[in-house]
Amino acid sequence: MRSLSHMIHPPVVHREHFRDADDDHPRLECGVCGVWGAPADEASAIVALGLHALQHRGQEACGIASVNQTRFHTERHMGHVGEAFGGTDLPERMPGTAAVGHTRYSTAGGSFLRNIQPMFADLDQGGIAIGHNGNLTNFHFLRNQLVGEGSIFQSTSDSEVILHLIARSRKAKIVDRFIDALARIEGGYALVAQTRTKMIGARDPLGIRPLVLGQLGDAWVLASETCALDTMGATFVRDVEHGEVIVIDHEGLRSIKPFPARAARPCLFEYVYFSRPDSVVNGRSVYGVRKRMGEGLAREFPIDADVVVPVPDSGVPAALGYAQASGIPYEMGIIRSHYLGRTFIQPSQGARQKGVAMKHSPNRAVIEGKRVVLIDDSIVRGTTSVKLVRAVRAAGAREVHLRSASPPILWPDFYGIDMPERDQLIAANKTMEEMRELLEVDSLGFLSVDGLYKAMGETGRNAAAPQFTDHYFTGDYPTRLVDREIEEGGRDAIGRQLSLLVTA
Amino acid sequence: MRSLSHMIHPPVVHREHFRDADDDHPRLECGVCGVWGAPADEASAIVALGLHALQHRGQEACGIASVNQTRFHTERHMGHVGEAFGGTDLPERMPGTAAVGHTRYSTAGGSFLRNIQPMFADLDQGGIAIGHNGNLTNFHFLRNQLVGEGSIFQSTSDSEVILHLIARSRKAKIVDRFIDALARIEGGYALVAQTRTKMIGARDPLGIRPLVLGQLGDAWVLASETCALDTMGATFVRDVEHGEVIVIDHEGLRSIKPFPARAARPCLFEYVYFSRPDSVVNGRSVYGVRKRMGEGLAREFPIDADVVVPVPDSGVPAALGYAQASGIPYEMGIIRSHYLGRTFIQPSQGARQKGVAMKHSPNRAVIEGKRVVLIDDSIVRGTTSVKLVRAVRAAGAREVHLRSASPPILWPDFYGIDMPERDQLIAANKTMEEMRELLEVDSLGFLSVDGLYKAMGETGRNAAAPQFTDHYFTGDYPTRLVDREIEEGGRDAIGRQLSLLVTA
Amino acid sequence: MRSLSHMIHPPVVHREHFRDADDDHPRLECGVCGVWGAPADEASAIVALGLHALQHRGQEACGIASVNQTRFHTERHMGHVGEAFGGTDLPERMPGTAAVGHTRYSTAGGSFLRNIQPMFADLDQGGIAIGHNGNLTNFHFLRNQLVGEGSIFQSTSDSEVILHLIARSRKAKIVDRFIDALARIEGGYALVAQTRTKMIGARDPLGIRPLVLGQLGDAWVLASETCALDTMGATFVRDVEHGEVIVIDHEGLRSIKPFPARAARPCLFEYVYFSRPDSVVNGRSVYGVRKRMGEGLAREFPIDADVVVPVPDSGVPAALGYAQASGIPYEMGIIRSHYLGRTFIQPSQGARQKGVAMKHSPNRAVIEGKRVVLIDDSIVRGTTSVKLVRAVRAAGAREVHLRSASPPILWPDFYGIDMPERDQLIAANKTMEEMRELLEVDSLGFLSVDGLYKAMGETGRNAAAPQFTDHYFTGDYPTRLVDREIEEGGRDAIGRQLSLLVTA
Amino acid sequence: MRSLSHMIHPPVVHREHFRDADDDHPRLECGVCGVWGAPADEASAIVALGLHALQHRGQEACGIASVNQTRFHTERHMGHVGEAFGGTDLPERMPGTAAVGHTRYSTAGGSFLRNIQPMFADLDQGGIAIGHNGNLTNFHFLRNQLVGEGSIFQSTSDSEVILHLIARSRKAKIVDRFIDALARIEGGYALVAQTRTKMIGARDPLGIRPLVLGQLGDAWVLASETCALDTMGATFVRDVEHGEVIVIDHEGLRSIKPFPARAARPCLFEYVYFSRPDSVVNGRSVYGVRKRMGEGLAREFPIDADVVVPVPDSGVPAALGYAQASGIPYEMGIIRSHYLGRTFIQPSQGARQKGVAMKHSPNRAVIEGKRVVLIDDSIVRGTTSVKLVRAVRAAGAREVHLRSASPPILWPDFYGIDMPERDQLIAANKTMEEMRELLEVDSLGFLSVDGLYKAMGETGRNAAAPQFTDHYFTGDYPTRLVDREIEEGGRDAIGRQLSLLVTA
Repeated sequence: MRSLSHMIHPPVVHREHFRDADDDHPRLECGVCGVWGAPADEASAIVALGLHALQHRGQEACGIASVNQTRFHTERHMGHVGEAFGGTDLPERMPGTAAVGHTRYSTAGGSFLRNIQPMFADLDQGGIAIGHNGNLTNFHFLRNQLVGEGSIFQSTSDSEVILHLIARSRKAKIVDRFIDALARIEGGYALVAQTRTKMIGARDPLGIRPLVLGQLGDAWVLASETCALDTMGATFVRDVEHGEVIVIDHEGLRSIKPFPARAARPCLFEYVYFSRPDSVVNGRSVYGVRKRMGEGLAREFPIDADVVVPVPDSGVPAALGYAQASGIPYEMGIIRSHYLGRTFIQPSQGARQKGVAMKHSPNRAVIEGKRVVLIDDSIVRGTTSVKLVRAVRAAGAREVHLRSASPPILWPDFYGIDMPERDQLIAANKTMEEMRELLEVDSLGFLSVDGLYKAMGETGRNAAAPQFTDHYFTGDYPTRLVDREIEEGGRDAIGRQLSLLVTA
Repeated sequence: MRSLSHMIHPPVVHREHFRDADDDHPRLECGVCGVWGAPADEASAIVALGLHALQHRGQEACGIASVNQTRFHTERHMGHVGEAFGGTDLPERMPGTAAVGHTRYSTAGGSFLRNIQPMFADLDQGGIAIGHNGNLTNFHFLRNQLVGEGSIFQSTSDSEVILHLIARSRKAKIVDRFIDALARIEGGYALVAQTRTKMIGARDPLGIRPLVLGQLGDAWVLASETCALDTMGATFVRDVEHGEVIVIDHEGLRSIKPFPARAARPCLFEYVYFSRPDSVVNGRSVYGVRKRMGEGLAREFPIDADVVVPVPDSGVPAALGYAQASGIPYEMGIIRSHYLGRTFIQPSQGARQKGVAMKHSPNRAVIEGKRVVLIDDSIVRGTTSVKLVRAVRAAGAREVHLRSASPPILWPDFYGIDMPERDQLIAANKTMEEMRELLEVDSLGFLSVDGLYKAMGETGRNAAAPQFTDHYFTGDYPTRLVDREIEEGGRDAIGRQLSLLVTA
Repeated sequence: MRSLSHMIHPPVVHREHFRDADDDHPRLECGVCGVWGAPADEASAIVALGLHALQHRGQEACGIASVNQTRFHTERHMGHVGEAFGGTDLPERMPGTAAVGHTRYSTAGGSFLRNIQPMFADLDQGGIAIGHNGNLTNFHFLRNQLVGEGSIFQSTSDSEVILHLIARSRKAKIVDRFIDALARIEGGYALVAQTRTKMIGARDPLGIRPLVLGQLGDAWVLASETCALDTMGATFVRDVEHGEVIVIDHEGLRSIKPFPARAARPCLFEYVYFSRPDSVVNGRSVYGVRKRMGEGLAREFPIDADVVVPVPDSGVPAALGYAQASGIPYEMGIIRSHYLGRTFIQPSQGARQKGVAMKHSPNRAVIEGKRVVLIDDSIVRGTTSVKLVRAVRAAGAREVHLRSASPPILWPDFYGIDMPERDQLIAANKTMEEMRELLEVDSLGFLSVDGLYKAMGETGRNAAAPQFTDHYFTGDYPTRLVDREIEEGGRDAIGRQLSLLVTA
Repeated sequence: MRSLSHMIHPPVVHREHFRDADDDHPRLECGVCGVWGAPADEASAIVALGLHALQHRGQEACGIASVNQTRFHTERHMGHVGEAFGGTDLPERMPGTAAVGHTRYSTAGGSFLRNIQPMFADLDQGGIAIGHNGNLTNFHFLRNQLVGEGSIFQSTSDSEVILHLIARSRKAKIVDRFIDALARIEGGYALVAQTRTKMIGARDPLGIRPLVLGQLGDAWVLASETCALDTMGATFVRDVEHGEVIVIDHEGLRSIKPFPARAARPCLFEYVYFSRPDSVVNGRSVYGVRKRMGEGLAREFPIDADVVVPVPDSGVPAALGYAQASGIPYEMGIIRSHYLGRTFIQPSQGARQKGVAMKHSPNRAVIEGKRVVLIDDSIVRGTTSVKLVRAVRAAGAREVHLRSASPPILWPDFYGIDMPERDQLIAANKTMEEMRELLEVDSLGFLSVDGLYKAMGETGRNAAAPQFTDHYFTGDYPTRLVDREIEEGGRDAIGRQLSLLVTA
């Protein structure tokens, strides 16, 4: 039940593929996609292409569930999509005209096989497979309730809560059961589900997590981002709306809005870091927003310098924006290696003192003797930033000016972003000047919250009704945090139940 | 959810380890063992030793759940116990003073990771892990009922039914919940379960499947056979009785008999083939019973011959009995290879015509020119027998007389033995003379049912109240067969539900 | 002797890691590095860091040989350096104060374990391990001669020829034997060798392949590129000179120039594509040369356009140069995926027609409606270019103008670059206008040979004594091509001998 | 060059397959077989069957070289034949009408991939692959000589010496070169070699190691033992004679005896332990010899006892012989597990004190209260014997009388048997009474040397001209021991050269 992964590799080996000591970014836990009505036996291959394009959202594990007439075929794997689902025997292994898929990091639940999605349940109406991107803020509350009623959980994934809610619904029809379950969960989510005859997509009431609808010939496609539509060869139809449930079956596509209308508040971090630059999220080009973040930063924190250098790859669009707005030349001052290198032993001399990072190498030719503006998309703990700054100085930079294309990160997330605790967030614990000193830079600047809203095409943040989910910058959480309230209410016993689930 | 095994090897590769084209024996699906009160951090290693000794009962997969204070550590693996649990890091990986383990073939449920035991559930009172040897005759009935109530099954193993029954029991105490579950299941079973504080053992009301109790220093041990006690270094205390529930915790050992008293009917096939010859099952030496089977056979089917040759290794004790009773010399006329060899390509010439088996090689030196009495423990389909007979003749035997140390097998089993369908059982479809011709032997003899009862130390079978489970020879099933009754009652829709569980 | 790789994976699986259908670049076969005089037990870890930084020169396989006092430890692996040598047990597995390493693609010799370097021989003076970057132009000639004298080859690598020449030298001292061997080989090479007491480095008489010398504390370091020095934490001392042999032992570093002085002719393709942008090769920043190539291209082939878009990652510096020289904005119009994706099944509809490449995704936001200048470092067969052009047009580009930052590639290489045969080189078989049509672009331009020499800091190519190796552009090979002469002389029987070496 | 096995598993994992702490037998290093003239594309599959049957002679690694017209296909693997060559893709991977194969333990050379046979060399006349069973007594002498002449060795296997001698022969024809090489080697050997057009078999001048000739349809077959002929489906033709070279090509079979005639002295240990009981070696049934050894033992060391118990499986035939000769009943008093179990952690209590062996389990039912005669084929160090004796006593034996079916082992072997050094041979260091005490038995008996010769069908040992190789019992080595003479002559420097070959 536990640690089947032992059969393959000791988990510590697997970890090495996914943890990156040179990477201080928050991580998104998941990407989802699905297709319904594909040519016979192509659904799993189409979903594999979509998952391939979504791996920046989670590359630790992946799974596909296909439906061939009424039979389900499900596979879940540790590792990259290409290794798991790249083989030419996929259509034979996983036949069907409909399929859903999932690729993941691990927030809630650890990185074990039993937590890989799509999760499957065999209901009395037939099977259902669900893939979920996001996080439920009342997961522990619901899980404890369900266990008390005799449900047996096989994972620590919040997706399984949804399955149990569906299984226990007293409604007759699967769509009604699905909506029953949605009515009880809170948080951010984009769901794709497959039954014997239907594909269902759903987005949380605020549209925190993204989900788009596309068409591929006669088939319907759902995916976390438009870049997946592109790779599948599908055309973009529209965003799934916040609070919308989409049901696709042989009668066509049906849109249901089972809950009262509210204003949308999509997550800003999708623009800052998570979504791929070539995706269009909620109608905005991610690349365009990032360039405008850099432009805003140039306006808010100008500096007299010789070169603008991005932290590759995430800082590139903002650095281009900064360079174009400031007129300072953009140069590849840091080279990123595409080979994994974190587990190397560091010899005692030389290497360590020089702060050489395995992933990023300074390009002395464009740095030596220069005043450098270093642009990153965000600064979380600051651990990578200081290594980069030292490397840039060691390569001869005369001055180093660090710019973050997003505002200071001050608060943790509960909607599916894997971020350190508050006491590890540098901006939450230090003054601007302390940060400047800690990061060993000549000057430091963060884009303002209003600057970020402007890059999004707004005139600024509407404090009365904020247009986006932005609590990591503002502390303004868009939903209740039931589990957290209970925990802080002293009922910390709740956590104990789960502690049984040892991850051997 | 399905086919996690894809990560390791394609399942077809795994199969090759376990299917043996040269082996026509029925297969037993499982062995169980457990220890409670072991020295700190030794429980999993002790259980590993026990499982190692029980692999003749199932070598396809194995699992252990240990309890360290109140934390569970569970691992389940495809493959042999030595590979899975032989490592010196086991106590570190799976600490604890109590543990239960399971080794298996696959009857109900296919050979997939999700079906490997012990199965674990996280109840609101804490975790419970269960290992099960046997088969429930009302499994489908209970599973459909539970799914209808909203339970989600992760496996097709009947052990999971027991877990769900425990989870849904309204009783407060875990032992009462466990007995609640036992009250609803029918069939043959030996169960070992581990909770945070207790080890529970249980044997079905007729004692069809075996279970013994032992002591290892201050610790209590449960195991399917005494050979496991020997390997663990434990001393035999007694058989767990039919219908008995044993609860072991810090207050000591408690015996509960929750159901009305009935006469025991242990399974005869444990003596014929399954149990290891050095085990003592229900007070009888397996080796001794088998030798007496051979002696009885010599009395019932004497023949004028030169050598008695066993089919190794299962026919050896009966052949020794036959030889000693008949005075005909016992010789190793067939050599068994201990290397797997079934997947070899057969070249076009030579090999095939000569019917050479990869596993058994005739020993020409003791066969050539001789009249051979060939002894096997049982004959199921007859497919291996005919190959052996041909090989023995090709090695120069003048006559071949085949003797089965057990009666003709006429009926399928529903209590945990993996046997072919009735239409493949040679004795159920052919007359004795037809069989003799098909098997290409000069004479053929099967021990009588009464002869077998005599080898068991009885004066014969008591038709009014048979002392043993013997339906495969007699058609006299010792319990109701609920699933089969429903299926034959035309409600064959029941099977369909499970057919969703495709085994990719 | 063959195909040991079968034990691990069928070779076809391995191939998938290294062949990239979306990549039309020539490939370099190798990188080498070594260290002498490292702190006890750190040499192998230092070399592992160096190899990690050299994987762009060959990522198919890697090997290290360390010397601990007089004992050699050698490991050779398929796959990436991080997987092979990233473990913390490396110093224990491969102790020593000196080590040499090698990372490779495969030109001569196929991609089999037996061809992985460093190659080792046990001479009567003791062991020697050699790593080689480059290619011998008289390899077949020498190999046949050696086989005729009774030498047994275990590989088809030209490095083994060098080992046999050393083994058969009649000189007493290892350095003299090494020079004896150099006297007989022709072609391009950078060699690092390790004996029990010495590290030897050597570069071919024209300095075709690069090799640099560095210092790491008290230790000496050799490496193909300066980027490896940076990653090891070493400081650059100087380039090893063309025709120079460097011997390092406990008496210090000795430079030997055993052959008559000639002018150097380093390989231009190191600047065009192979070396990492942050390396300084023969005194020139690779990044700087590439930017100047782009600037030259803007002068030679200006165009009225809206955006300059690089083919990532190799076209980025030239595109920045083009953009800065032309004033047209530089934009990330193509996003490169860092996940492997070539083996995916292409569904029948959608994907294929749209020419979607798994590796490169057009960024519609900056392409739609624009006149695009697409910059690549070179065009070999043109197969990838046309896919990219179509993808860019499918994303809405109004015009596509393709620019190659290097001249047309017209001739094959024999010095260690894996390039297609001449009949597959698009520029060798088509007129400029035919190419423009085939590549489906509005205009097409290649940097001139003189333009490339200018980017290198020369005033132009000196036809009488060309400053660089440039035969792929000019047909002017810098050395004799003995094997090719023999082959063309009709003695094609020579190749047959090797054909025995089947690569199962 | 070293430790390619690291790619697959750490070597320590591999070891566990081959070392058996419960097994105190000497080990034979190799089995060979070959076929010439098989139906197109069947040769490798036929050889795989033969190797499968020879794995008792070495199961650590195996290899096959096939010849398809003039192309060689060679694969060498760690692990069992079924895993390496059992796949249905074998004929496609390794096509050809001729093939040779090898299965091995490791005596000279360690257990590394580079030492796996058949070894291949690419001579100027074409390729040659050689498989070798035995050991050369002048290996170090020849290897040093060849290295001094510039030969490069890739292995530490003595088979490679033979290849280099062939490669350096000045003769024109391959058979003459082969005989040239034979003229220089000393020791025990059975060789099968394959060139583009011929298969060659050879046996050492004394016929120490066995080799038989068979026919399979129109094809010729060579194999170490007749059991391999049986499994391949071939018929036995004759033993290859001592000192005979057999050459098979399209002109048919040719027998050459290139060296002066001497009397044969086949190795007795083939009968005592190595050969499979169903093989006929040099005209004698191995099973028959072993039974007669037991009969002789019963005559030489009779005892009043209740049961004769073999140590399975090697002691079974002798135990049957003892039982039949003595009239004491034969019983399976020890059960052998077919599952590997040596790496298990032994819990602190119970198990260890009781001396429970993982491989052998006493069968209490036939031992308790009995006087037991325990029969083993030989006693080497005595380490396993004492464990078995204790286990038998723990199971209740009243007396234990140990009998070895072969004489005391007093001297090491140099012809291919892996035996401990002399100081570990119990009989070489203890008196009979000391041994009896150490082994904790009531009486102890070893068959006499003359008794063994009688079991072989002789009237006794002819001391003037011993009929068999028997130095392990007598100290009478049948050949010069050149390497040993040199080593004892103080020139121990010779070993040092090889010490370079570290086995990482």
